[in-house]
Amino acid sequence: MSAVEICEVSPRDGLQNESVVLETASKVTLVERAVAAGARRIEAVSFANPRRVPQMADAEAVMAAVPRTDDVSYSGLVMNRRGLDRALAAAVDEVNVVVVATDTFCLRNQGATTAEACAAAAEIVAEARAAGLATSVTIGAAFGCPFEGEVPTTRLDEVVARVIDAGPDEIALADTIGVAVPAAVTERLGLLDRRAGPGTLRRLHLHDTRNTGVANAVAGVAAGVDVLDASIGGVGGCPFAPNATGNVATEDLVYVFDRSGVTTGLDLATLIDAAGWLEGRIGRRLPSALLHAGPFPP
Amino acid sequence: MSAVEICEVSPRDGLQNESVVLETASKVTLVERAVAAGARRIEAVSFANPRRVPQMADAEAVMAAVPRTDDVSYSGLVMNRRGLDRALAAAVDEVNVVVVATDTFCLRNQGATTAEACAAAAEIVAEARAAGLATSVTIGAAFGCPFEGEVPTTRLDEVVARVIDAGPDEIALADTIGVAVPAAVTERLGLLDRRAGPGTLRRLHLHDTRNTGVANAVAGVAAGVDVLDASIGGVGGCPFAPNATGNVATEDLVYVFDRSGVTTGLDLATLIDAAGWLEGRIGRRLPSALLHAGPFPP
Repeated sequence: MSAVEICEVSPRDGLQNESVVLETASKVTLVERAVAAGARRIEAVSFANPRRVPQMADAEAVMAAVPRTDDVSYSGLVMNRRGLDRALAAAVDEVNVVVVATDTFCLRNQGATTAEACAAAAEIVAEARAAGLATSVTIGAAFGCPFEGEVPTTRLDEVVARVIDAGPDEIALADTIGVAVPAAVTERLGLLDRRAGPGTLRRLHLHDTRNTGVANAVAGVAAGVDVLDASIGGVGGCPFAPNATGNVATEDLVYVFDRSGVTTGLDLATLIDAAGWLEGRIGRRLPSALLHAGPFPP
Repeated sequence: MSAVEICEVSPRDGLQNESVVLETASKVTLVERAVAAGARRIEAVSFANPRRVPQMADAEAVMAAVPRTDDVSYSGLVMNRRGLDRALAAAVDEVNVVVVATDTFCLRNQGATTAEACAAAAEIVAEARAAGLATSVTIGAAFGCPFEGEVPTTRLDEVVARVIDAGPDEIALADTIGVAVPAAVTERLGLLDRRAGPGTLRRLHLHDTRNTGVANAVAGVAAGVDVLDASIGGVGGCPFAPNATGNVATEDLVYVFDRSGVTTGLDLATLIDAAGWLEGRIGRRLPSALLHAGPFPP
């Protein structure tokens, strides 16, 4: 019997990529439904510039309203010093910092080369830790880049080394545009393992853009990954593939793991209810398979 | 470098589960497009009773019009003696016979218990072989039943033993309602391996109903399966989950295998073109991920 933690990212990466902007109260309800389903780690908000990411402009209001208990950890995405100050004021439990594995994408995403973004991440991680927060660095485009194409493992290895120098509690490999396959997950998690000490948590951020999300998650658990990001309903999308699906659906992962003897601590029926509710709020058919097919046995 | 054969089942299992009935010429075009993409094995038609399966009523006309070359093998689904006579007259290369692993589902599907269906399959296999045709038996609901729920491995093992006695060239385990997970694929293919001699081909028929199709296919190839069924566009559905997706999409499998060093002999770009064409004919958004996200690298 193995286990994996699922970090619920629908309130942040999911909603950030929807054209419909949910009101604060609905975001809080989404978080409450995730907690009711058993989620104990939630990326709830982003402290990005509200002019660039208007969907996340109410981060402080969301954090002020979500249920705070000792066993639920709330993470906020932080891009810079200003974002960290907001995160500290909003009293998140963790900060997540992104660096992108290719310079082209990193410059477009945050106006910095990968090396500059790693240096900035190191400062944010140090200050967040000094303030008592848990820290995570997500390496975007770790499996492929929409601008540069293939990301060689040698390049990823260099980025991983820089991120390890930044010293976060956790490092994530993000399949930002959904191009990974299980063999690449195994290879690139192995690369992370060789660089990182046993005290560093390893997380995978998977998108189901090319229908490989579940297979990649299964490969990740087989390789001993600690945490998987997922999104209720599979809400969200891919800014580089306008018709494509988003984060792998939480309930799709829980289905496959429930039937494979892998513990997640999440309740499938409660997640499916939440996905149905969210589909109604978003107003389009969400990609979640379990929402539309139902569980088995019924 | 490993390899797997993909049997294209969109003309049969795909179209059989669509409410739109394609005219014969479009079915032939679909087959031609599959051949152009590299398909060398195609389940093209069903010889079921046309009153029960009106979508397949033009089986003879389809078989008369598809391109016949030595390197493409056409299979027809046969339910009984009458179907076999039609298959022989239509000059298919192979017949595929279904038995369902549970009595309840088998009685509803073909008016026979599993044991009776196995006995009938043995007769059809013997007669088809005597006529020079290749033979395959598909075990439906091999991973779960919409009426009886879980199908114990002990039950499947009994059915596999009966099917082996029938003596087909190939045996398929079908996840008819899309409930399998990779661990079950590994376990149940292992069960088939223990019963079947090395001369019997092993095929998996996967549905993507609960988003596990690609993961199950990857597990099947890791376990040494010989053939995977798949459907261009992921066309089709599941009669027991009206809102759910159908067979795993051929192009989704080819994407993951192309990037994993597993040879299929199929061309991804040609498959995506075919899926786009088929989506236009069917008139609804097909579930194929590659059709909507595009290949990578672009």
